[in-house]
Amino acid sequence: MPLSAITLLTDFGTADGYVAELKGVLTTLAPGVPLLDMSHDIPAHDIEHGRLTLARYWRRFPVGTVHLAVIDPGVGTSRAAIAVESEGRFLVGPDNGVLSPALFALDAAVVQLPVDAHVSATFHGRDVFAPAAAQLALGVPLSALGDAWHHAVRRRTPQPQRQADGSLVGEILTIDRFGNALTNLMAHGLTARTAAGPAHTVSVGGDVVRVVGTYGDAAHGELVALPGSSGFVELAIRDGNAATLRGLRRGQSVSLLAV
Amino acid sequence: MPLSAITLLTDFGTADGYVAELKGVLTTLAPGVPLLDMSHDIPAHDIEHGRLTLARYWRRFPVGTVHLAVIDPGVGTSRAAIAVESEGRFLVGPDNGVLSPALFALDAAVVQLPVDAHVSATFHGRDVFAPAAAQLALGVPLSALGDAWHHAVRRRTPQPQRQADGSLVGEILTIDRFGNALTNLMAHGLTARTAAGPAHTVSVGGDVVRVVGTYGDAAHGELVALPGSSGFVELAIRDGNAATLRGLRRGQSVSLLAV
Amino acid sequence: MPLSAITLLTDFGTADGYVAELKGVLTTLAPGVPLLDMSHDIPAHDIEHGRLTLARYWRRFPVGTVHLAVIDPGVGTSRAAIAVESEGRFLVGPDNGVLSPALFALDAAVVQLPVDAHVSATFHGRDVFAPAAAQLALGVPLSALGDAWHHAVRRRTPQPQRQADGSLVGEILTIDRFGNALTNLMAHGLTARTAAGPAHTVSVGGDVVRVVGTYGDAAHGELVALPGSSGFVELAIRDGNAATLRGLRRGQSVSLLAV
Repeated sequence: MPLSAITLLTDFGTADGYVAELKGVLTTLAPGVPLLDMSHDIPAHDIEHGRLTLARYWRRFPVGTVHLAVIDPGVGTSRAAIAVESEGRFLVGPDNGVLSPALFALDAAVVQLPVDAHVSATFHGRDVFAPAAAQLALGVPLSALGDAWHHAVRRRTPQPQRQADGSLVGEILTIDRFGNALTNLMAHGLTARTAAGPAHTVSVGGDVVRVVGTYGDAAHGELVALPGSSGFVELAIRDGNAATLRGLRRGQSVSLLAV
Repeated sequence: MPLSAITLLTDFGTADGYVAELKGVLTTLAPGVPLLDMSHDIPAHDIEHGRLTLARYWRRFPVGTVHLAVIDPGVGTSRAAIAVESEGRFLVGPDNGVLSPALFALDAAVVQLPVDAHVSATFHGRDVFAPAAAQLALGVPLSALGDAWHHAVRRRTPQPQRQADGSLVGEILTIDRFGNALTNLMAHGLTARTAAGPAHTVSVGGDVVRVVGTYGDAAHGELVALPGSSGFVELAIRDGNAATLRGLRRGQSVSLLAV
Repeated sequence: MPLSAITLLTDFGTADGYVAELKGVLTTLAPGVPLLDMSHDIPAHDIEHGRLTLARYWRRFPVGTVHLAVIDPGVGTSRAAIAVESEGRFLVGPDNGVLSPALFALDAAVVQLPVDAHVSATFHGRDVFAPAAAQLALGVPLSALGDAWHHAVRRRTPQPQRQADGSLVGEILTIDRFGNALTNLMAHGLTARTAAGPAHTVSVGGDVVRVVGTYGDAAHGELVALPGSSGFVELAIRDGNAATLRGLRRGQSVSLLAV
């Protein structure tokens, strides 16, 4: 039976050695526990980007996995340090919303981690969160790490709004490395154009965008809408960067109309 | 006897969480199998860069290693998904040439991976390739993963051409992080200048470039040619970026003349 | 008893496959030994940045850990290849100062690694350092790897200078990803402003900078000085990039005056 892994998500980059310090603490306190890098390239202080990234993976790991997520612009303020148990996984990080994806489960339990007065006021990742993650990986129960905390910040993905004409107006949540724009519009039932005409119409920036099943159905240079890999509508240009070529940006409105 | 590792090569970057999803699938399906990052910074959709990177390492790992390589601009088109066994290693990825370095071995076997209708049409890395890699790491034989596939795309490094004057004209294949230009000219027998005069002459962009044995033999600011670490002629400036300083670029001709 | 890990620090980036080659050698020679990435994003050839990064983490890992650190602009010159045992940890790399943090311990032992004539003159990371690291991870004693070497380059962090007025003048050693400026001024006893007035004054670029306990004590947009996570004075702007906004740069003078 292999030991549960600890995954690491930060906005530290790696060049400064902060991630290396984290790994030193984890290796010392939890010897033999595999450490798995998720990303250290979250844009600095971008809690929302961290939240959306964590949402993609936290439940894809086995029960018992410990997810450490340190995007922590408020370190040293009054924001709490927390650990979470949710659907059998554990999560550790600042109480600023980055751990929200795990907080909506019915069985989610949260404790506040004590912060000793002698630890660095600027690096709780190393001094508070990593030691807690190590303990959880070793099997220490959540309740032994701190008192129950009922005030955890729960950030939600904004919900699309239904308009009078029946359309749903959502928005671009994030732009990925390929320039694809990921929206909050659910792709369930999204139907491509058929002989009978389009079943759905997607619009962004005043343009109507053709709905296709996958990148390969797009013409080169054509902006298309398709079901993304997490079940939401995505805007993309085949073999091109849609965000750059079409000026798409986070927060921009996208509408979906069933015809 | 430690378990065989799975190595990961992608053009995903890490910030969007796609690599994290891959690792979640792998950890779930192949618990305890070490995951080793090769790179996630291959330029987006650059199959050729991925191929050259894979060529460097795939045979340096022990027999039994599984190499996952997902540079996959054609996901969702008719390109096949394949798994390969070659010289005792396994490779999994799209059939677009990225796995070519392993396909020229005499014993190379290839199977086509079935793609279920319900998987994401935009993320075969997560839904097709990672599950296949996990199975291979657990010892499932290649032939159990799919039917033999005889049409695999085999990309070759372009070969230098012999000219009437006896010179070989090759090209710059890639520029590395240090600005060194890696060519397709074999460095075997490359001889530096001696008292008897130069044994080889290398030319690029109309300039004759001095042949040296290593970076330390170059003067500061001097463009030199030397045997690179993979056995091919490399162009470099000691403590400087040759590509930037001398305008070297991928595809540029380089000639080698034995005197 | 888990095997000791090998940590990896380089300036290779990952896209070219050099790190992948290192990992192939390590996995082949030391099967089952965990490999932990510290960073591959050290600026190219920046020995000093590598040294400061290594200083942060080498002692945070358990006794027995092997730290591989390859920032090696002088590969192929007469610089020695070395391995070090210090405070129970092992370090392997070029003798150019990058390993200095481990060389000042009383018990530090250094050997020179032999370099076979047949190895690549441009990639000792793969051909000299990785094999030595693998041997150390497997328990081969340091003395079996080479002869004692008494000339190792020891780079020190520059020391602040005491001025006639009692102030200490130090400098900015490095700028981190967040734009925080890390100095060589020890923060021990650094005291924030109290009702009785400031106990310490920090100045940079002609400006007096307020001393605070942590980021959260700063006003938005205010440049402050605070104790950094390694015990040295740091200059930062809350939720902002101090280096960019205030033009801070490596090597710039910072003075500290106790009032």
